[in-house]
Amino acid sequence: MSLIDKLQWRYATKRMDATQSVPEAKVDQILEAIRMTASSSGLQPYEVIVITNKAIREKIKSIAWDQTQIVDCSHLLIFAAWDNYTAKRINDAFDMTEKIRNFKSEAGDIYRQKLLSTYPVRDAELNYTHAAKQAYIGLGTALIAAAYEQVDCTPMEDFDPATLDEILNLKENGLRSVVMLPLGYRKADEDWSVTPKKARRSKENFVRVSTNAA
Amino acid sequence: MSLIDKLQWRYATKRMDATQSVPEAKVDQILEAIRMTASSSGLQPYEVIVITNKAIREKIKSIAWDQTQIVDCSHLLIFAAWDNYTAKRINDAFDMTEKIRNFKSEAGDIYRQKLLSTYPVRDAELNYTHAAKQAYIGLGTALIAAAYEQVDCTPMEDFDPATLDEILNLKENGLRSVVMLPLGYRKADEDWSVTPKKARRSKENFVRVSTNAA
Repeated sequence: MSLIDKLQWRYATKRMDATQSVPEAKVDQILEAIRMTASSSGLQPYEVIVITNKAIREKIKSIAWDQTQIVDCSHLLIFAAWDNYTAKRINDAFDMTEKIRNFKSEAGDIYRQKLLSTYPVRDAELNYTHAAKQAYIGLGTALIAAAYEQVDCTPMEDFDPATLDEILNLKENGLRSVVMLPLGYRKADEDWSVTPKKARRSKENFVRVSTNAA
Repeated sequence: MSLIDKLQWRYATKRMDATQSVPEAKVDQILEAIRMTASSSGLQPYEVIVITNKAIREKIKSIAWDQTQIVDCSHLLIFAAWDNYTAKRINDAFDMTEKIRNFKSEAGDIYRQKLLSTYPVRDAELNYTHAAKQAYIGLGTALIAAAYEQVDCTPMEDFDPATLDEILNLKENGLRSVVMLPLGYRKADEDWSVTPKKARRSKENFVRVSTNAA
């Protein structure tokens, strides 16, 4: 199956089969893809929280419009972004890179100083938003990785983030919940959304080819 | 090559070979992957602008820290998000879906009304930010699609967005530039960033497994 075929296969699953569990090896591949994908300046300013505990998922369901996939999936991923960019977080990322590569450079130092002098002084909300966008790169990667493993998933933005942060003690860890992704298997006979044709804007309405200067 | 191998192969290319051009068929596959990926409520609240014109790319380079990939790539993609959610945009998306599927439902109508009563009344900046996050799902998808086509790319956030919007007449079209992605081929002998080991947080520092209630 080509990448496009896999994108055709996947869909935002509305009903999941609570009796089926995604094998840990597949979950690991999906998490590894998220870990390996790109992020701005390589900071990876988010974490992925994996929730299997049913009681926690019941609580989360109650603050997310009772979407049943939250409890019928086997693994609920929560993307949680840094609440702010701090000097420590930036330095830790650069120190780690230097350690892994066993390499320090002047260009690297200049870049580190550029981030240190611009990010931590910015408004925390702006920094969180920037970090949350990076988590969406991770989400885009996870969708494809799940399709590769023939695992179903449903991106979910519609929940009460402040309460979710409390349930998961995110604030104490300098994190804020961004988006959720239940991993599981479709219950095709109960899911009206399996059959409909994928609806996307036509290429002409989505891609603009600009060859002339404004 | 597995998905993880492809994510290992890709990197934020620093030097591109201006003598090599990405075949249109490969560009089309990358654009098609972006078009087919997920977005919140299926609204696809962004466009992708493809720029091959050298003069425009020179202008853009001058407002993006003179990053050479902008002119040395063969196709510069600009992800431009809706500046706001309007009733027309929401209705157009739902109308299109109903037309493609030849299907209208009460549930679909309720969902449409929910968005119509909540999105357009929100602050435009909040709506733009939400739309921009969806563009990052597209970016995450594009990175992988490019790797599948063995095409190099470099996500770029560091440019003057207001001037880019002017250069491309985005404001008049209700769009705002979010992120750029030059597509091209690495000039490996001049790119120090080809060789270094990929630096990523360890799984233990990136993935948190939560099994207990808070």
